[in-house]
Amino acid sequence: MRRVPGLIAARLAACREHMARSRLSAYLVTRHVDQLYLTGFSGEDGAVVVTPETVFIITDGRFAEQATREAPWARRIVRKKGINDELARLRKRLRWRRIGFQADHVTVAQASLLRKAVRPAGLVRAGPIVNDLRLAKDDEEIAAIRRAVRVAEEAFVATRRAIRIGMTERQIAARLEYEMIKRGAAGSAFPTIVAEGRNSSLPHARPGDRRVHEGSILLIDWGAVVGHYRSDLTRVLFVRRIPPRFRRMYSAVCEAQRRAILAVRAGVGPRAVDRAARSYLQSAGFGKAFVHATGHGLGLDVHEVPSLSRRTRAPLRAGMVVTVEPGVYVPGLGGVRIEDDVLVTQDGAEVLTTLSKDLDDMVIRG
Amino acid sequence: MRRVPGLIAARLAACREHMARSRLSAYLVTRHVDQLYLTGFSGEDGAVVVTPETVFIITDGRFAEQATREAPWARRIVRKKGINDELARLRKRLRWRRIGFQADHVTVAQASLLRKAVRPAGLVRAGPIVNDLRLAKDDEEIAAIRRAVRVAEEAFVATRRAIRIGMTERQIAARLEYEMIKRGAAGSAFPTIVAEGRNSSLPHARPGDRRVHEGSILLIDWGAVVGHYRSDLTRVLFVRRIPPRFRRMYSAVCEAQRRAILAVRAGVGPRAVDRAARSYLQSAGFGKAFVHATGHGLGLDVHEVPSLSRRTRAPLRAGMVVTVEPGVYVPGLGGVRIEDDVLVTQDGAEVLTTLSKDLDDMVIRG
Repeated sequence: MRRVPGLIAARLAACREHMARSRLSAYLVTRHVDQLYLTGFSGEDGAVVVTPETVFIITDGRFAEQATREAPWARRIVRKKGINDELARLRKRLRWRRIGFQADHVTVAQASLLRKAVRPAGLVRAGPIVNDLRLAKDDEEIAAIRRAVRVAEEAFVATRRAIRIGMTERQIAARLEYEMIKRGAAGSAFPTIVAEGRNSSLPHARPGDRRVHEGSILLIDWGAVVGHYRSDLTRVLFVRRIPPRFRRMYSAVCEAQRRAILAVRAGVGPRAVDRAARSYLQSAGFGKAFVHATGHGLGLDVHEVPSLSRRTRAPLRAGMVVTVEPGVYVPGLGGVRIEDDVLVTQDGAEVLTTLSKDLDDMVIRG
Repeated sequence: MRRVPGLIAARLAACREHMARSRLSAYLVTRHVDQLYLTGFSGEDGAVVVTPETVFIITDGRFAEQATREAPWARRIVRKKGINDELARLRKRLRWRRIGFQADHVTVAQASLLRKAVRPAGLVRAGPIVNDLRLAKDDEEIAAIRRAVRVAEEAFVATRRAIRIGMTERQIAARLEYEMIKRGAAGSAFPTIVAEGRNSSLPHARPGDRRVHEGSILLIDWGAVVGHYRSDLTRVLFVRRIPPRFRRMYSAVCEAQRRAILAVRAGVGPRAVDRAARSYLQSAGFGKAFVHATGHGLGLDVHEVPSLSRRTRAPLRAGMVVTVEPGVYVPGLGGVRIEDDVLVTQDGAEVLTTLSKDLDDMVIRG
């Protein structure tokens, strides 16, 4: 059994501290990104069990070789039957009494089967142990997010150069995803949005057959996965000219975003960041047109805590990476959203995105 | 309020029959594909509630316009607060007494919050109501899967023509995804697998930087999403020549697949289909190298019930669409998997895939 890599060892140590406080004999990690975070194992089947002494990776034949490659130091169990059968066997052999589980991931149906399988050990809600660890990113994670931002940006630059009148939303989205993968992305961080014209008033539009024409506005929301970490950006492009009503919308969103980013700092409540954007848009007459939160955490998942919304109280912490993405949507006309990825620091924010958002730079020839 | 489209009406009627049997005043649908199936609404936030008289779609501002476009006949509720708050309000106003929920989707943490919110109404496990409906596909669904197969196949033909010596796995995967989207796919049905050489011995390999060379084997597992439905195919290509050890592996997998497809018929147990492939591979000396089930259901999700495995008893039904995909994996050498999508009929199976799998056709010039 090889040595546990330093970063993984630190995460496991923090996890075990939580476990000791709740007197857990074992902590069952079922969420795949959490398994990846704690062990480096990226398989799509299985369970990870952390005990005070050992880490078990239970998986099936499809991912067995991968488990050995990615986490050679862990105890690998290739299951023949269900995960619950393997857990029952371990529970008996290692005499577990209290098994923590991820109550925000395991379904009601799974939990009742699991409870039966590990009886007489108790099955207890472990609280968001890994979620808490994942909140603030370490240097390696931040480096991966930077790479994901860089790949997304370079792909965007290549794609906007290739946009021509007559192309469909779908073709642009496909090109953008292709350019990301060509530059080393494992894939898109989420389904790419390319919304032409009034489609852009749907904050989560899906690319379809609408075609680019002179005067088109194109809302593009995209991101890359690099080394399992994600980026998430939005820009709006104008083909040849800027429709008059969009000038005011664009400037308002841009200013709202600037104010929100200025509000970001460790110790500040997410609601204050949201308020900075929202109250500006209200004063500009777009209060009702801003229909979502100002941003969200970003990392292994594209939507992580914290949500930058009116309802989030726990203060921001240094090392968090969040999106800042106010938007204004007018049904029948269209929408504008501007989104950057921002690292929370002790005394402010570092904007990881470098793409221009000056209105004049958003005009393309097509 | 407009008329409910025929197909949706039939699904809702079937759902309400189940509800009546369990004396439910309301059925809370939280799984997004199930919401899509029952209402046509494809938003990514929200809950659908079916009552004997009405269908409510609870969503947030981002998806409000989309809800109206996709399900104009439903009662739309744009939530300002949490979904549970809206449910509590409805429970009170409509005097619900028993609310069914999807126990195989709602987490333990969500369920306990929900239970509190709808008190004094009872929260009861509704059983797999929509899952059961989704098992057998109707004509419209089968047509969508056929389109998803067609798009995947055409993209594959274009991509295999473009494969050149020196290209990386990742570049081939990106090209394949691009070609699918160009032909009308909303995206990949799952992360495309392109595994060169010994990487192909990982059944779920991810494309990386390995390059195509003379004598390469390329295992490609891909699929398209068209009209929300998915396809899932696998082919193995050989660059310029077929490495000797792969001839026998390929023929064995091909024959195992032929036998499994022959075993498919309404009324037959999935385990019999699995056995047809598995016992042949065992007799050919590859028993231990076949490390996964023979196939799985396919539809709105890429992995649906039934699993074609040793452990599945409930017989196949006409209208089910399943993959048939035996494979043989030799760590350090490589793997072969051949996968087609198959429609279960009263008297057998219709293979939806049309791509050749003759060994000689799998050789490309590169």
